[in-house]
Amino acid sequence: MENIFPTRQLIIESAARITPFIHRTPVLTCKSINSMTSAELFFKCENFQKIGAFKIRGATNAVQSLSEIEKRNGVATHSSGNHAQALALAARNSNTKAFIVMPENSSKVKMRAVRGYGGEIITCEATVESRKNTLDEVIKRTGSTLIHPYNDYRVIAGQATAAKELIEEIKNLDIIMTPVGGGGLLSGTALAANYFSPKSDVIAGEPVNADDAYRSLLNGKIMPASPHQTIADGLRTTLGDKTFDIINKYVKEIITVSEDEIIKAMRVVWERMKIIIEPSSAVSVAAILKNKGGDFKGKRVGIILTGGNVDFDIPLF
Amino acid sequence: MENIFPTRQLIIESAARITPFIHRTPVLTCKSINSMTSAELFFKCENFQKIGAFKIRGATNAVQSLSEIEKRNGVATHSSGNHAQALALAARNSNTKAFIVMPENSSKVKMRAVRGYGGEIITCEATVESRKNTLDEVIKRTGSTLIHPYNDYRVIAGQATAAKELIEEIKNLDIIMTPVGGGGLLSGTALAANYFSPKSDVIAGEPVNADDAYRSLLNGKIMPASPHQTIADGLRTTLGDKTFDIINKYVKEIITVSEDEIIKAMRVVWERMKIIIEPSSAVSVAAILKNKGGDFKGKRVGIILTGGNVDFDIPLF
Repeated sequence: MENIFPTRQLIIESAARITPFIHRTPVLTCKSINSMTSAELFFKCENFQKIGAFKIRGATNAVQSLSEIEKRNGVATHSSGNHAQALALAARNSNTKAFIVMPENSSKVKMRAVRGYGGEIITCEATVESRKNTLDEVIKRTGSTLIHPYNDYRVIAGQATAAKELIEEIKNLDIIMTPVGGGGLLSGTALAANYFSPKSDVIAGEPVNADDAYRSLLNGKIMPASPHQTIADGLRTTLGDKTFDIINKYVKEIITVSEDEIIKAMRVVWERMKIIIEPSSAVSVAAILKNKGGDFKGKRVGIILTGGNVDFDIPLF
Repeated sequence: MENIFPTRQLIIESAARITPFIHRTPVLTCKSINSMTSAELFFKCENFQKIGAFKIRGATNAVQSLSEIEKRNGVATHSSGNHAQALALAARNSNTKAFIVMPENSSKVKMRAVRGYGGEIITCEATVESRKNTLDEVIKRTGSTLIHPYNDYRVIAGQATAAKELIEEIKNLDIIMTPVGGGGLLSGTALAANYFSPKSDVIAGEPVNADDAYRSLLNGKIMPASPHQTIADGLRTTLGDKTFDIINKYVKEIITVSEDEIIKAMRVVWERMKIIIEPSSAVSVAAILKNKGGDFKGKRVGIILTGGNVDFDIPLF
């Protein structure tokens, strides 16, 4: 697959391409959360996905789309999160190398995980400039192909496959929800809904402390990152031009939620469903809990639980 | 079902009796834990069961076995744990009342859960004597039927259905594991294995801090409780005469594990499988991790994960 806009057909092909390398994750329901929200919720459990998050979908699709010549020199990215592990594993599955630029203050657990999947880590200073310069240098030195965490059509098409599976399994969804950070999952989900379930609205949740996507939709252009911190660390990034254009066209609404609402929603899922989700995954649930009785009342809502990679050394509740 | 020894036929009937009231829980596998243990593990996820634990099986079987006359006056028990919630829900599902004697220092979360299922709580002092006297008084006053948490053949037959389902789904298990507290689940599992998968050995895990079952098997008679505390709070109870006789006859081995081993095993399951299990559930996993390379090497091992009711206000790691 070339790096071109994901059509219906390209998403169908991406799903076929990545199937051997990913889990078909289950869709779970929970009576007590339905009752708390007055809605009918269907949780697509990407926390059970390989590497513990949906990111393996986009990374695999991108790596598997490379030519044999490109594969010889490997792939590269910068990430301190799930994309780092995803790209390392996707590269190993494709018998190629992954060069991962990570800030030197990244958690040791995450660095160990990347190395565990055979990725080569190049550390940089924890600044945007150092990250960019280091990645440029790595690509120049190795001839590897950049796989951006989200602003890449092959990645977007890969992330779209989660919603595609959800739509195949659960019919007549009124709403499909994801969180939004860089917008790879949200834009892929919006395209999948548009192609495969056009009556479903796509709505995103976003931390109010990282509300650049909310402000970008409001202003009709990409807005800079919020200066605040959020526990939903996967969502700190800003939209790219590719993800913004899709989100701007196809996403109905972005609902912002507070840190407290995120933590409460995460705890509801842990306690009621007995599954581990990371804070970023709880953002959509928080948006529904916040608006219960409102837009979600009586609706069939698909929710993509994005991942389950939690550092238990940090107290959460 | 009368309160008589659970035969093969009685366990089959119990399974049919409780089916409308329980979940058929999934059996999950985890490649990375298989690799850590050099064994092939099959996790029967009773943490996803109604009330968050297997206890609903035994309680439902006991309540559904009552005569219409008995049902009029309700059921009673003492429990500060999962059996309290289980009996409350089982009674409500059978349109009868549950009187639950709980120590006045029980957690508010658990009391709220019991009331949420329609159970009537009678508090007592946190002593064995007060608990016994209060329960006697309640039964005398209400005419309700005692449903003991484990030393009851109807309860044992109900708990046996978890292993029965596991055996139906996963063939040729070399070993089936549960933790042991009062022995309701372990004795039921041992009977189910004996009837439905006689080549499977049944092995239990037990906290070394609550090793009365281990010592009871060693001495051939019921030994008193250990004076220590354990994080696996569901396993503090001692065997009853009914559970001891079955365990003594049919259980191959009890492996004791330290508090540290329990916590580490729980964390492995949380991190690798992304599911919440309570400390009691982790005891079997801890026993396998402790003996890796030993008795479990290359074996197909079924593990009943007993529950997922964790109080997140208490830091675990």
